Amino acid sequence: MKFATYKNESGQFIGIVHADGRRVLPLLEVYEKMGGKSALPSCMAEAISLGDVFYQEAKKTVQWVNENNLDSELYIPLDSVALLAPIPRPAKNIFCVGKNYAEHAIEMGSKDDIPEHVMVFTKAPTTVISHGQNIQSHSELTEQLDYEGELAVVIGKKGIGIKREEALDYVFGYTIVNDVTARDLQAKHKQFFIGKSLDTTCPMGPWIVHKSAIDNPNNLDIKTTVNGEVRQDSNTENFIFPVEEVIAVLSQGMTLEPGDIIATGTPAGVGKGFKPPRFLKDGDVIEITVEGIGALQNKVEG
Amino acid sequence: MKFATYKNESGQFIGIVHADGRRVLPLLEVYEKMGGKSALPSCMAEAISLGDVFYQEAKKTVQWVNENNLDSELYIPLDSVALLAPIPRPAKNIFCVGKNYAEHAIEMGSKDDIPEHVMVFTKAPTTVISHGQNIQSHSELTEQLDYEGELAVVIGKKGIGIKREEALDYVFGYTIVNDVTARDLQAKHKQFFIGKSLDTTCPMGPWIVHKSAIDNPNNLDIKTTVNGEVRQDSNTENFIFPVEEVIAVLSQGMTLEPGDIIATGTPAGVGKGFKPPRFLKDGDVIEITVEGIGALQNKVEG
Repeated sequence: MKFATYKNESGQFIGIVHADGRRVLPLLEVYEKMGGKSALPSCMAEAISLGDVFYQEAKKTVQWVNENNLDSELYIPLDSVALLAPIPRPAKNIFCVGKNYAEHAIEMGSKDDIPEHVMVFTKAPTTVISHGQNIQSHSELTEQLDYEGELAVVIGKKGIGIKREEALDYVFGYTIVNDVTARDLQAKHKQFFIGKSLDTTCPMGPWIVHKSAIDNPNNLDIKTTVNGEVRQDSNTENFIFPVEEVIAVLSQGMTLEPGDIIATGTPAGVGKGFKPPRFLKDGDVIEITVEGIGALQNKVEG
Repeated sequence: MKFATYKNESGQFIGIVHADGRRVLPLLEVYEKMGGKSALPSCMAEAISLGDVFYQEAKKTVQWVNENNLDSELYIPLDSVALLAPIPRPAKNIFCVGKNYAEHAIEMGSKDDIPEHVMVFTKAPTTVISHGQNIQSHSELTEQLDYEGELAVVIGKKGIGIKREEALDYVFGYTIVNDVTARDLQAKHKQFFIGKSLDTTCPMGPWIVHKSAIDNPNNLDIKTTVNGEVRQDSNTENFIFPVEEVIAVLSQGMTLEPGDIIATGTPAGVGKGFKPPRFLKDGDVIEITVEGIGALQNKVEG
């Protein structure tokens, strides 16, 4: 099941994306129609923090629609609403794993850059934009804006000291993140944060796929194109640190909370990896596709 | 004026700390008594986001109490309530400036470690505790827990591309932060985040002093003691990057928001700087004093 956040004249809502990818079920409204026991929140982070009951009630709602053949009556066209990032305003910075694919670590320097231990930096919540929104070029600040296609994990349950074997129990689902980076600022300021936190540099979405639809997060094709040209083409089986390991290491001593977002790192093929480098220009369209999730597309603002 | 957040049986409130440092004025309650125009929020971050009107109304309330000699009637003993961190749950990670005092950069390595540009990393919001709460030793994860006394800036107004000359207009006030750090994790994971984000490693408080009470944030004595022994003793005039510069650099391309917290870096004298190093042990009491603000005291949990 795919959970989207959208906006229309009446406010911000959670929608279940139809299998055809073109329509969305207004979850709260339909849940009420069905006679669901109590109101569901309209905020995704709040809904996720309800725990498994949220997914179960959403599933029940979709089944009720199917069984009563209300499909064509209740789903609304996706293009009649504005899609937002699934969690438009995370309650803390986005956690990002650095250099989690060996080939990418090498393209950024050499074999010596392959990390021995999980490396984590963050992006400010003010960076988040949705599928379809424009990425500002920040041309007065950077000449080296770069893309990074990544699988992102959405945490579903509070936990600390989470064991590898139980790590996936703490996941709500998966989405896609473009960890847009100003390479010159990243290098200039040493710690990655500043070069990773310019406004609009975290496109996220288009939706969250529930974990029940993803057999193994460590075996998903991931591909990034710029203006249709393939730049990154890999599979998450190439992770140095698989999702379970990242969750275990992050939660050692630090409490993870529902709605937390972990971007898992980017494969080889970023602009900086080319000789000469191929940084983003105004008007470039970046599309990141992750198997089983969908495609996240954003244009650099001219 | 000193703004504290406290808790009692009825909930969480904002209090104005008396000049004697031992009593607090329940702001909302007294504001209502005075006949203030509308309710003030009980959440500090929300109150700060109201802009200057919040400070003005708070000031009016304190004056009204003075003028009507209600001082002894309306202030309540600080020790009758539980002090919380002034912003108990920041809406994003705490921004932290790395190596902002030359002597500290040298004690952490050599002269080559003095940064040419502002270096910023973050601490998760789950790290925040109040004055008086215990810092967990996390002894199963680290053998090198260290203190870092710091002046912290609380942003009062939304802004991007803020000019140095106008930077202090965007400040609400100042508080104290102990940027507790697991040195071994900081080194092991390269990017600082993991070693800086263990639960309870961001004592903050005891309150926020409004900027009108601080002539110049770049000229304040700052001192850290461990079990009464002076370890850090400096002045913020030794900043490599003064507060205005930090705000200007951070807000280049990234929107700063009311309630954002910026820890400005720590002076020389951290445990790792001693030969041999003097890391924190169970039962150690760390007290950080910043001129014009107060003293933030926390014990390492045995």
